[in-house]
Amino acid sequence: MTSSSHFQRVLSPVVTPFDESGAPSAERFIRHCRALLSHDVGLAVFGTNSEANSLSVGEKRGLLDALLAAGLPATRMMPGTGACALPDTIELTRHAVASGCAGVLMLPPFYYKNVSDEGLFRAYSRVIDAVGDTRLKVYLYHIPPVAQVGLSLSLVERLLKAYPGTIAGIKDSSGDWSNTSALIAEFAAAGFEVFAGSETFLLRTLEAGGAGCITATGNVNAAAIAQLARDWRAVDAPAQQRRLDETRAVFQRFPMIAAMKAAIAWQSGDAGWAALRAPLVELDATQRARLESALTALGFRLPHAEQLALHAGALH
Amino acid sequence: MTSSSHFQRVLSPVVTPFDESGAPSAERFIRHCRALLSHDVGLAVFGTNSEANSLSVGEKRGLLDALLAAGLPATRMMPGTGACALPDTIELTRHAVASGCAGVLMLPPFYYKNVSDEGLFRAYSRVIDAVGDTRLKVYLYHIPPVAQVGLSLSLVERLLKAYPGTIAGIKDSSGDWSNTSALIAEFAAAGFEVFAGSETFLLRTLEAGGAGCITATGNVNAAAIAQLARDWRAVDAPAQQRRLDETRAVFQRFPMIAAMKAAIAWQSGDAGWAALRAPLVELDATQRARLESALTALGFRLPHAEQLALHAGALH
Repeated sequence: MTSSSHFQRVLSPVVTPFDESGAPSAERFIRHCRALLSHDVGLAVFGTNSEANSLSVGEKRGLLDALLAAGLPATRMMPGTGACALPDTIELTRHAVASGCAGVLMLPPFYYKNVSDEGLFRAYSRVIDAVGDTRLKVYLYHIPPVAQVGLSLSLVERLLKAYPGTIAGIKDSSGDWSNTSALIAEFAAAGFEVFAGSETFLLRTLEAGGAGCITATGNVNAAAIAQLARDWRAVDAPAQQRRLDETRAVFQRFPMIAAMKAAIAWQSGDAGWAALRAPLVELDATQRARLESALTALGFRLPHAEQLALHAGALH
Repeated sequence: MTSSSHFQRVLSPVVTPFDESGAPSAERFIRHCRALLSHDVGLAVFGTNSEANSLSVGEKRGLLDALLAAGLPATRMMPGTGACALPDTIELTRHAVASGCAGVLMLPPFYYKNVSDEGLFRAYSRVIDAVGDTRLKVYLYHIPPVAQVGLSLSLVERLLKAYPGTIAGIKDSSGDWSNTSALIAEFAAAGFEVFAGSETFLLRTLEAGGAGCITATGNVNAAAIAQLARDWRAVDAPAQQRRLDETRAVFQRFPMIAAMKAAIAWQSGDAGWAALRAPLVELDATQRARLESALTALGFRLPHAEQLALHAGALH
């Protein structure tokens, strides 16, 4: 982590729990976020793994307000604010900045495909200019496998030149180490924080001079991932990395978001955690059994299971 | 057109004009919509060509309200209401139904890729159940080249069985005639209205028993497309189809939305029409010159140029 970083080395794109009516469950969300913080994991709320683009602007504002009302520190939050429609991105970004969030993670508009770098530059410019606040720190969000609209190195360079005090870093979820390492080589020396999109790249990212990772499995394996982020120069760091990879590999055998929620529901005893919003669907019974069996074989234990349990007696 | 159709055979996904501040220009929008209606073209406002996913829910509600306040008939409107977030889809759909719109054109949630038919079925179900209004007529919107999330024939069949009075038709923008013809063969006899996503398929669609087309170039070539939709059994229908294809081919040499707006700006003398919202960008001067030259060679004339001119003297 560079000394200028606003964040810890590991952030979790926090999964969003729902209640029986299908609305976001602020109570479950607060418990989960508080637990992640206790494991030294920052809160990249409203990311891809948060089903953030399945939430309305109002639902996202409400959840952020609920976290702050519960006393969670905005200085450890990097909410996702990028939407298809720039007015939505502007509203969410303004709200995050006004709330004191240390940064925002910003998808490009993603409905139209094969758009130009000029168009993407204008989109980011429009938001930054409209927010017009020196406190704004933008972390670009590059996730071509899902958004299908990526951010080229030349676009990053142009944005950094135009907004040197505002463009703070990037989350690279391309899964392409050559892209992540190029971002670090090109821009990290100037203080630009490069976060890998998976802990699979955590050790390599830190060794190369990157900032850390923002990773789905931060939701379920927070303590161990944060441990490697602290120990990355230690002799057992490669062994820690291998163990992280083994756990991640289990979750990756399934639809990732559904699998993480199923694991949380299982370990916390709170079955309500398993719900997703359409178009995503929960694991079926066979998948759940396979997931639980594979995690048991690894000796996996959700580090904050007790903090999530709605009733003490529900834990098994 | 089947006798049960709520719409004329040709609808335009109406391009959305902006004003100098970047906000939607209701004045230009009303003029354009009124002119399209005068050419017997229905109003599929808030489609892909409308930059609808670059507009907030509030902006779309405002534009629809402005059309109705100007006296345009909701019975000829099929607003796009599908968004990534189901609460947004529900809000826009409720508003369209309450406003008396004859139908809505509904994208599936499109952020997550490779989602299951079960997840898409749940998404449509959730919206239909939440709106809970027998007046609701849903036209499914299949546009895999852009949304990257398509609607399979088996999903269409399942939705039709579950909501026979509500699922009214589909716009097929796959560009794949084998898919359009399969939709017609499977479902048109039961009154399901299949609209091709381009006038390139208009004659074939009508001959096969489909409902018509919802096509971008309806914005700029409305009169001629509507003419073929009336004359499709006439001896010169294939010749009309070829002329439509020639005009479309010119627009397709450029980014389509930018090219249509440039043509409208050029022919109406209202330069403000050329503006797009990021991430889309307007044609550059070279592209504009090439477009104007190609259209001039075809003898192209925007049928409603005079209706769009802000000042009579501005027309050339």
